[in-house]
Parts: sequence; C-alpha cells; structure tokens
Amino acid sequence: MEYKIAVVDTTFARVDMAKYALEALSKFPDVKTIQSTVPGIKDLAVECKKLLEKADIAIALGWVGGAEIDKQCAHEASIGIQMAKLQTSKHILEVFIFEFEGTPSEVKSIAEDRARKHAVNAYNLLANPTILKNNAGQGIRQGKSDVGKL
Amino acid sequence: MEYKIAVVDTTFARVDMAKYALEALSKFPDVKTIQSTVPGIKDLAVECKKLLEKADIAIALGWVGGAEIDKQCAHEASIGIQMAKLQTSKHILEVFIFEFEGTPSEVKSIAEDRARKHAVNAYNLLANPTILKNNAGQGIRQGKSDVGKL
Amino acid sequence: MEYKIAVVDTTFARVDMAKYALEALSKFPDVKTIQSTVPGIKDLAVECKKLLEKADIAIALGWVGGAEIDKQCAHEASIGIQMAKLQTSKHILEVFIFEFEGTPSEVKSIAEDRARKHAVNAYNLLANPTILKNNAGQGIRQGKSDVGKL
Amino acid sequence: MEYKIAVVDTTFARVDMAKYALEALSKFPDVKTIQSTVPGIKDLAVECKKLLEKADIAIALGWVGGAEIDKQCAHEASIGIQMAKLQTSKHILEVFIFEFEGTPSEVKSIAEDRARKHAVNAYNLLANPTILKNNAGQGIRQGKSDVGKL
Amino acid sequence: MEYKIAVVDTTFARVDMAKYALEALSKFPDVKTIQSTVPGIKDLAVECKKLLEKADIAIALGWVGGAEIDKQCAHEASIGIQMAKLQTSKHILEVFIFEFEGTPSEVKSIAEDRARKHAVNAYNLLANPTILKNNAGQGIRQGKSDVGKL
Repeated sequence: MEYKIAVVDTTFARVDMAKYALEALSKFPDVKTIQSTVPGIKDLAVECKKLLEKADIAIALGWVGGAEIDKQCAHEASIGIQMAKLQTSKHILEVFIFEFEGTPSEVKSIAEDRARKHAVNAYNLLANPTILKNNAGQGIRQGKSDVGKL
Repeated sequence: MEYKIAVVDTTFARVDMAKYALEALSKFPDVKTIQSTVPGIKDLAVECKKLLEKADIAIALGWVGGAEIDKQCAHEASIGIQMAKLQTSKHILEVFIFEFEGTPSEVKSIAEDRARKHAVNAYNLLANPTILKNNAGQGIRQGKSDVGKL
Repeated sequence: MEYKIAVVDTTFARVDMAKYALEALSKFPDVKTIQSTVPGIKDLAVECKKLLEKADIAIALGWVGGAEIDKQCAHEASIGIQMAKLQTSKHILEVFIFEFEGTPSEVKSIAEDRARKHAVNAYNLLANPTILKNNAGQGIRQGKSDVGKL
Repeated sequence: MEYKIAVVDTTFARVDMAKYALEALSKFPDVKTIQSTVPGIKDLAVECKKLLEKADIAIALGWVGGAEIDKQCAHEASIGIQMAKLQTSKHILEVFIFEFEGTPSEVKSIAEDRARKHAVNAYNLLANPTILKNNAGQGIRQGKSDVGKL
Repeated sequence: MEYKIAVVDTTFARVDMAKYALEALSKFPDVKTIQSTVPGIKDLAVECKKLLEKADIAIALGWVGGAEIDKQCAHEASIGIQMAKLQTSKHILEVFIFEFEGTPSEVKSIAEDRARKHAVNAYNLLANPTILKNNAGQGIRQGKSDVGKL
C-alpha cells in the first residue's frame, strides 16, 4: 500500500513550511508526495482540490499577515478549504500561521513545528488512525507544546 | 431495528468527550457506534461526512481554545458541519466546548454533561422524536442545567 | 389544492413558538402541517431540508441565547438555512428570537408575534403572493409593530 | 431579442424600491419583467433562484434595519445571494439599503437612486456590456454620486 | 499551446486595474485574454464562473470602499469567489484593493502593482508552475515590495 499526500504552500509565506512537511513525510517509506505552490492562502483550497484528484490527503500550508484584514482573508481561505474537503470527501489539513502568534523568530519555529506535526497527522489519518484515537482528548498541539488533559 | 451512531472527536480536546458520549449511548441496546479521532475541530465535518456513509447520525465533539482567533476557527468548523449535514441530509450534533466557558474544572464538567446529553439527543432524533417534541420550547440546555420555559 | 407546511422548533427555546405558528396556520382550511423538534438552532437547516421532501415550505423557529458567542451560533445556523433553501429551491422562513431583544416578558411576546406573523407569511408565499406584493416596501415587521413606509 | 428581468423586493423595506427599478426598466422596449415580493432580505436568494428559471437576470432589492444584528442578517442574505448566482450561473444585482446610511429622507433617496441605477446595470449586463466596459475603473456609484477615477 | 486568461473588473473601482493586468499579460505571446466588466465586487464571482467556461484561469479585480460595511461586502464577494473556484476547479486570482490601504495616490500605485503582479501569477500558474515553486516561502507580496524570508 502506498499513500499519496499532496503538499501545497504559498509564495506569500515567510518560511519554507513545505520543506519541513516534506522532511517529516520522508520518514514514511510508504508515502509518495506531490507538491505545488500558489500565490496566497486564498488559492490553497482549489489547488488542494485539484491535487486530490490523484492524492489521498492534502496539507494546506498558509501564512497570514499581521494586519487586521488578514484575519478576514484567512477566514475566507478556510471556508474554501472546508468546501474543498466536503466536495472531495478527503481530509485537507489546514496549517495556518498567523504573524501575531509571536516575534518573527517565534513564528518561524511555530511554523516549522506545526508543519512537521500536521504532516505526521496527515500520514496517521491515512495509515495509523489508532494513533490519533489513542490521543483523543489529550490536549495535543501543533506549533507549540502539548497542553495535556484537564 | 438498529441505529448506527458515529462519534468523532479530536486530539486537540483536553477532555475525553467521546468516552462520555459512548457511555451514554451504551445504555441503548439498539445502538451501534463507530468512532474516529481527527486532529482538530476543522477536521470534524469531513470525517463525519465520511462516517455518515455507514451511520445514521453523527456526533461531532469539538474543543475551542481560549484565544480570540479560536472563535473564528470554531466558526469555520461549524460552517463545514452545516455543509456536511446538508450534503448528507443527516443530522450531525455539534458539541463544541469553548475554553472561555469557565475555569478548567468547570469546563471539564460542561464537556462531560454536554457530550452525554447530546449523545442522548442523537439517539432520540433517530429513535424517539416524540421525546424531543415534548420538550419543545422548554429551555433545555446541554453543558449546564436547563433554564426552563419563560 | 392543499398546502403542506413544515414547522420545526427546538428544545433550546424558552417559548413554545410552534404552538403559535400552528395556531395561526389552523385558520387556513387548505393547510396541512407537519412538525418536528430538534435540540438547537444549528439543527434546524437539515431538519427543514428533510421535511421539505414532503412539504412546500418550512418555518424554522429558533431561539438565540444572550451570550456574545450565541450570535455566532445564530449566524452559522442561518448560513445553513440559506444552503437548505437553495438546495431545495423552497422557502424556509427563519424565525429567530434573540434574548437581547428585550426583557423576558418582552421577548416572550416578540416570540409569539413573530411566530404567528411568519406563519401567515409562509401561507401567503404559497397561496396569496399578491398580499405580499401589495405590502412591498411598507415597513412590515414581525415581533414588533410595523414601522411603515418612509 | 427580448430580455427577461426578475425584480424581487420585500415587505420589510420602508421604500417601494421595486417601483423605481421597474420604472427604470420600462424605458427599454426589449425588456420584460417579472416581479415578486418576499418578507425580508433572507428570503431574496431563493426567490431569485426560482424566478431565474424563467428570467435572464434578477434584481434583489433589500432593506437592512439599523440595529447591529441587522448587519449580520444582511451578511447571511448576501452569502445566500452569492450561492444563488453560482448555482444559476446568472447575475443577481444585490441592491441593499442600510438604514445607517443616512437620515430617513437621505436613505429614501439613496434607495430610489440605487434601485434605478442597478436596474440599468442589470439591463446593460444583458444587452450592452460595452457600456459597463467603458466605465471600468471610473468610480461609478449607486445611491450616491459617482466618485470618479483617482 | 495557448493559455486563455479571463480578466474581470468593476465600474466601482477608481483605478483601471484591467489595463495594468492586460498590459502585463500582453508580454506573453502564448496568452489570449477575454475581458468583461461588472458593477461591483459582489458581481465578480459569477462573471468569472461564466468566463471560465472558455478560459483556463480568471483574474478578479475588485475595489473595496473605505466604510466599515465595505469590508463585509468584500468578505461576501470573496466567499463567492471561493465557491466559483471550487465549482470550476480553476484558479481565480482575487485582486482586491481596500481604500484604507493608503492615501489615494498610494492606493493607486498599490492597485497597479497588485494587478500587474497577479496577472503574472495567473500566467505562471498555467505555464510556469516551477517559478512559483521556486518562490515558495519567500515572502512575496503584490501591491507592495516583497518582505522576504524570515
């Protein structure tokens, strides 16, 4: 069995998130990846939909600027991603980084961590759903440390 | 007659809400459950859609963090769930917990109560619609005590 | 000719709005009603869609709590209702009561008035569209007194 | 060639906007209009969709009250209209008046002006697309005076 | 191979953005353009959908006024554009200018720069996806200077 995972990122992003996602996926011998780049977050949904014609799951790597209006743009991009998932009946892991999440260097390491962990999530959704099931309700986080169970 | 109920939860949640939902459902001898876990709330809609190919109703157990942006994420997840319901013509009970609803221990018991009560609601929608009809307009709440009729 | 009107309400509501809607509809000898109850506003859209397989129009009776987040919930419910209308190409009259509209007793009478008047609107959309046409631009209100033409 | 234009308005509106739209359209000998009235803005999208089964374009005349929540209602109505356009692949000119746009008498003349001008836009989209093309980027406004090119 | 690119703009805009987009596209000998103009941003999505019946990609050139409500209008327009992309499985580059982005003369040059650069993006998505791939995560901007990689 081979799993096909699509990775889509943007030229808008300030960190090469795809590199980290692909690195994380390269550890799984049964994964094949396809990759493409679009200008910005609002272009992710339709690109994922297109790649999902030949992939089993997609990872949408988005970067959200620090202005107030950028949150609205992220919202629109995210609604589009919901539509794309439901039209394809496949998962698209939305990996969005917001510049307000920290200083530039913090945001950079959030981006790396979130991209890596969601790449593993994508793989587990396809190949190891019981790993996710065992972590249900455990306060798992991407981009930061897990916060744990209450 | 047997009713098939899908329960979907997340690794993001800080309480094992599925446990409570499944416990509540275990009291109905005519219910069979299927369960899966996704990373976060935005992944619930498509997972429910997928499970609804073989289930009659779904329960989407989501956890919303305490940051302002998390409300936007919940909104996107919820729009996706509306789409999934309307595409499948089946109910998906959206059971979302917001961290701002109380202190950690309050939120924990809200989560348990809401998961249990909506599991029963899911069963009643399928098996006992007259129980819901008899409670129409009665100020029934999940997560808290009922507020009653005005 | 007989008109079939679906009435859907919630257990969350604090007023038995369906009672008023059904009372108003009972005055039309050519109306047959079907009714069901769901837990909350977000469950209305798909229930209306299901009932519209056998009804000509639906009335969605919703109740919105007084917390800030409840407006977001109403928004999601309303988007779902827009989707349901457009998928069925049938009207769904959205009758939402917001707790912030007044004191408990004011809200109660708003709920009664709005449910009754929109029940008549539902009937007129099917049976007497010219009554609506004659009231175009007249500042007609449901829940409160008409405000009139400017 | 004859163009069929649907005009939909509401009983909620405080100005008879359809009158102005129809007056403006009556100057085009090759236009035939169909008209209907719904209770409020959220009912416009599905009514337009229904009329677009026999019309080439629709004009949705909506009125938005002055309360904060009314903007949310307008938003939901507008999302519905986007859906209706994309499902029919036909234009629906959304002509919404917000009460906060001015004093009652200002709002009244905004409503007249906007309804008239968008009626002409609807005609031009069907019959004279080059008129629109010649005005591209010219700061054309409906409801107010044109603001012109920067 | 010839690429067909649709350019849609509005009469509402205060800058002739289509001129810049078309100028930028004229440098590619293998591009053929089709163009049309609609009244405002909310009309862009369905017009793009219609032109995408014969084009490979679309550029939606929108202008957003400076009032608070205009952001909501942009949001609705943008949701419509997401729907149009996903219904056609083709890219629509959303090129929106917000009046609050600067003084009139700043906004004018933002509009020119953004229209030109997104026209090139549209071409690259069709003809040179590796150019986009090479710029992944590089902090590329349209309307302003690139901000670069962190």
